[in-house]
Amino acid sequence: MDFFDLVQKRRSVRKFSTEKVPDKVILKSLQSALLAANSSNLQPWEFYWVKDKHKKNKLIEACFSQNAAKTAQELIVSVSRIDTWRRNKNLLIENYKQEGKLLPIIDNYYNKVIPYSYYHDMFGIAGIFKRCVSFFTAIAGFFRPVPRGPISKQDLFEIVTKTTALACQNFMMGIVAQGYDSCPMEGFDENRVKKILDLNKNTHVVMVLGVGKADPKGVYGDRFRIDEDLVIKII
Amino acid sequence: MDFFDLVQKRRSVRKFSTEKVPDKVILKSLQSALLAANSSNLQPWEFYWVKDKHKKNKLIEACFSQNAAKTAQELIVSVSRIDTWRRNKNLLIENYKQEGKLLPIIDNYYNKVIPYSYYHDMFGIAGIFKRCVSFFTAIAGFFRPVPRGPISKQDLFEIVTKTTALACQNFMMGIVAQGYDSCPMEGFDENRVKKILDLNKNTHVVMVLGVGKADPKGVYGDRFRIDEDLVIKII
Repeated sequence: MDFFDLVQKRRSVRKFSTEKVPDKVILKSLQSALLAANSSNLQPWEFYWVKDKHKKNKLIEACFSQNAAKTAQELIVSVSRIDTWRRNKNLLIENYKQEGKLLPIIDNYYNKVIPYSYYHDMFGIAGIFKRCVSFFTAIAGFFRPVPRGPISKQDLFEIVTKTTALACQNFMMGIVAQGYDSCPMEGFDENRVKKILDLNKNTHVVMVLGVGKADPKGVYGDRFRIDEDLVIKII
Repeated sequence: MDFFDLVQKRRSVRKFSTEKVPDKVILKSLQSALLAANSSNLQPWEFYWVKDKHKKNKLIEACFSQNAAKTAQELIVSVSRIDTWRRNKNLLIENYKQEGKLLPIIDNYYNKVIPYSYYHDMFGIAGIFKRCVSFFTAIAGFFRPVPRGPISKQDLFEIVTKTTALACQNFMMGIVAQGYDSCPMEGFDENRVKKILDLNKNTHVVMVLGVGKADPKGVYGDRFRIDEDLVIKII
């Protein structure tokens, strides 16, 4: 099916039928997710495919037992992390080296710019330091374009969550491309979800993705979008 | 082309050829973006398609004159907002009413839950109030699943930016589905971009999207992803 037909076809399905979803459908969609665009190629995402029955029940509860979770054949939790950048940039550098393509500009970017942006300590001292530096950067900013962040841990979380969302959209499109349906959920008890997945403070739960075949009553009403002139601005 | 082939084909292109991109290609991709999944259907995004030559040059400068911006035939800025929720939820409610489908649960959600989550004042008083309430919620959270946020303005920004990213991935896939290429950029002077677009403090610039046809040297090297076992966890 044509991409634009798939876009039309993808709806958030709130109730799934009892039809099983083959593992390969989920896996293929997850692999598409990992090929999404992402920030500095640092791939700060994780996808937890919760198959264990006990954990799955706990996860459904943590999603307030909403229909989309309860009836989903499969549940996948997408997570963004601010603590895998070092491992991942080292793997990137290793790959550049193996290909003989570690140019000085790349070396500098991954060994200086990225650590400066991503390093954070538990006491927030790095954040305060960066805040001070940003004051001087802002002065330079009167004269020329300058980078304005990330400064705080929260800024970093916004970056990694943004990137993980790019992957999530690919995941959902991958599901619909294979004839199945999904529902992205943001209504959940994040603390409980983290406990189920054994996640630390350097993670955010981006969304819980329910997957299955739509029940005939699975889509709640026609799709509604506000007038596109309100959000597409040609200037 | 099959969705999974498109996923393979989409790469971040750093240098575009001089071939023009028809307006309808951009528009069709933007319309696909607007059909992405989004948080509570509040559609907190905006897409600025910068055609004015003077503004476009300013935008290129604000992107540190990087090649992907300089050589792009078209530049689109995606923006997330925490101040359009009221207008948009009113439009949603209006639509539900017209369709005779404004159930009490929907009315309650958009007229109570959403305002509580999204309301913020410039002094941060609402944030402090919500922080206090969250203390009591956390106590209840020992006994049952409870929602943990959004509390701060920054939490809200993470939600709207996440949702806008879902749309951006659709946009990029729409571009590649029509035989063109894109580059999502996060390296820019956000203050300057906001000034060019006349944006207020309730907005974040999510990414700048360059569009064109890839120059033969437009893709910098083979795609590299870390081992999928590091990020796909089956539990």
